[in-house]
Amino acid sequence: MKMIEGGVCAVDNILAWGSRKGKYGLGILYAGKSTAAAVFTSNKIKAEPIKLTMKHLKDGRLSAIIANSGNANCFTGPEGMEDAQRMAKFVAEGLSIPEDMVAVASTGVIGRKMPMNIIEPLTQKVLGGLENSPRGSRRFAEAIMTTDTFPKEFAVEFELEDGNKARIGGVAKGSGMIAPNMATMLSFITTDVKASSSQLKEALRTAVDETFNMVIVDGDESTNDMVILMATGKSGEIDDNFQEALNLTCRELAKMIAKDGEGATKYMEVEVLNAKSQKDARRVARTVASSSLVKTALFGADPNWGRIIAAIGYSGAVIDEKKVSIILESENRNIELIKEGMIASENNRGLKIAADIMNEDEIRIIIDLGIGKEKAKAYGCDLTYDYVKINAEYTT
Amino acid sequence: MKMIEGGVCAVDNILAWGSRKGKYGLGILYAGKSTAAAVFTSNKIKAEPIKLTMKHLKDGRLSAIIANSGNANCFTGPEGMEDAQRMAKFVAEGLSIPEDMVAVASTGVIGRKMPMNIIEPLTQKVLGGLENSPRGSRRFAEAIMTTDTFPKEFAVEFELEDGNKARIGGVAKGSGMIAPNMATMLSFITTDVKASSSQLKEALRTAVDETFNMVIVDGDESTNDMVILMATGKSGEIDDNFQEALNLTCRELAKMIAKDGEGATKYMEVEVLNAKSQKDARRVARTVASSSLVKTALFGADPNWGRIIAAIGYSGAVIDEKKVSIILESENRNIELIKEGMIASENNRGLKIAADIMNEDEIRIIIDLGIGKEKAKAYGCDLTYDYVKINAEYTT
Repeated sequence: MKMIEGGVCAVDNILAWGSRKGKYGLGILYAGKSTAAAVFTSNKIKAEPIKLTMKHLKDGRLSAIIANSGNANCFTGPEGMEDAQRMAKFVAEGLSIPEDMVAVASTGVIGRKMPMNIIEPLTQKVLGGLENSPRGSRRFAEAIMTTDTFPKEFAVEFELEDGNKARIGGVAKGSGMIAPNMATMLSFITTDVKASSSQLKEALRTAVDETFNMVIVDGDESTNDMVILMATGKSGEIDDNFQEALNLTCRELAKMIAKDGEGATKYMEVEVLNAKSQKDARRVARTVASSSLVKTALFGADPNWGRIIAAIGYSGAVIDEKKVSIILESENRNIELIKEGMIASENNRGLKIAADIMNEDEIRIIIDLGIGKEKAKAYGCDLTYDYVKINAEYTT
Repeated sequence: MKMIEGGVCAVDNILAWGSRKGKYGLGILYAGKSTAAAVFTSNKIKAEPIKLTMKHLKDGRLSAIIANSGNANCFTGPEGMEDAQRMAKFVAEGLSIPEDMVAVASTGVIGRKMPMNIIEPLTQKVLGGLENSPRGSRRFAEAIMTTDTFPKEFAVEFELEDGNKARIGGVAKGSGMIAPNMATMLSFITTDVKASSSQLKEALRTAVDETFNMVIVDGDESTNDMVILMATGKSGEIDDNFQEALNLTCRELAKMIAKDGEGATKYMEVEVLNAKSQKDARRVARTVASSSLVKTALFGADPNWGRIIAAIGYSGAVIDEKKVSIILESENRNIELIKEGMIASENNRGLKIAADIMNEDEIRIIIDLGIGKEKAKAYGCDLTYDYVKINAEYTT
């Protein structure tokens, strides 16, 4: 498996482009006649473009995606649905494809009418720029950013079991309203493997479950989440190697979202080992990564492991406090804080090392529950002054 | 029902006192031979004093409480249990009562050995100060404060159905690790009604469920939560009037905890009306009051009601977005933002009033789900720079 440049455009025949005007951005992706599958937010309030895209995807086929940032087109009623339909129509006309082959995605403020007077000319501009190049993917990734501080792209080349070379490319955006079970997270992934929509769906579910669904920024779950996977079918048949490459793509994009969490200064991975069930492993990983107290301790580089213990305790998972071990780790060092329920590093030297680790940019918290064989990993960040600042002033 | 002064000491024969040394505080309450009941944290990691108090309360009787702040005595193993037992013993010896008539409560940093060299002399000092006076209750309330900015006391006098006058008095502490289902919340409540331990337990469960269990500061659930109710039996029999007075006492203490949430500048009540089930009403109230995005919007006085809508949507409750109404209210005004799924105040004047309301100190968010008859209320606060500051620097 080889990481390559080019994001969604690393895959042959995929065209992409994007543009911005003020706080609004718009990106279009064209993939010819592709099979497709998607995962949507589980929020019961769904934005209008989510409803439309669900409908358009019913036959498992898509040709294009139009995605805008700056306005979520959510809780906007029948008028909002009309706006989403118009966006699909602009693209369908521009590319001479049926309207129901176009997915629409939006991210931004909820409950505001779409600024169609800005969206329409932006759409025409972006249609004119579409190209199969790293630049095209980058412009698309930039166009869908909201409070993101960097565009998120990833691509990989790998060999299928039938000997064909295949590729997967993706773009994504974060970076607030990020909770377990998706987030205001948009991600669009392309590939050239041959696969039915149901094969793609199964592969995407598997990958999303252990990657995007394990990212936590603030625990608020968005009304607009959407991950779409489109396959052009120009290479070989879908197989386990594809699944592995897709997992990697989703994981790397998920990590970028966690690293770019609103106001984040630090990236945290919470790895849970030896849980009694898979559900318990996921619960503990997510609860610790979600804890405001763990997140602020991380920001303050305060090795207050009691907050990790408390979060494990209220996660709902089966635990035996006499079996719990906790290790803190950074790139260059690690320290065991708790070993099977006993304080392993109470002396000042131990806490000093722990504080040093927490002062680094990327921290892993490894929790060994010691009572089973299941494991899980969650991806998060610290809670900072800037998170409060960004979100206290968001719509003003 | 008449609000009175005196906190826990508003009840005859209740002695209390407290003292502090540096970051450690210690309070003792003496209630003679009382029946008692308690509610404890549901965190699976329980502090040693919680385990000890559960044991001492098995027979439904208590005479005294010793509570300290600054150290949670949690995850401290057999040595921690010995320390909790020694605290009970100091009090038992000082008051000439059996050890198993003493409840022990702790709050503070997790995973640190109790500083018994400070606790022991403080205990002797406090035992010497015990008195039945408003000053006694106040000193107790001050001694159990951690990051609290004011002591929390409440007392009420009321008439029982049998014609007897009775009283209830309480003290509490907040103010971080405050989640649905209790919090690092200690509360000690006294009364002079006659009641068995099981009667007290039922009354306390009822009151706690709609008050302390609906307070949210940061969503982190503590290992040390404890609410104890002690009844001296000097007045008439427990009845519905008592329940009403107990609900009021718990509600007022719960509100004080929400108002004094770490770093809070604003108090928020989330009232949910016409939910399909009681569970749904509680879920929606708690989810909105817990949302980091709603809490930061409150801090920034940003009338971003889309975040309320998103939180309602991911609460897990049954909803019909076409039936939802949202009203924002302060002491002097209110504005309907959403009326049965439609934006009711999109014009600038509406949003201006909403912003003005959010600039006040106490804000009510009223959510009418319009699909049933159940209601619930949650108590919370904003998420501020100071919450981050307090918790980034907590143990250092």
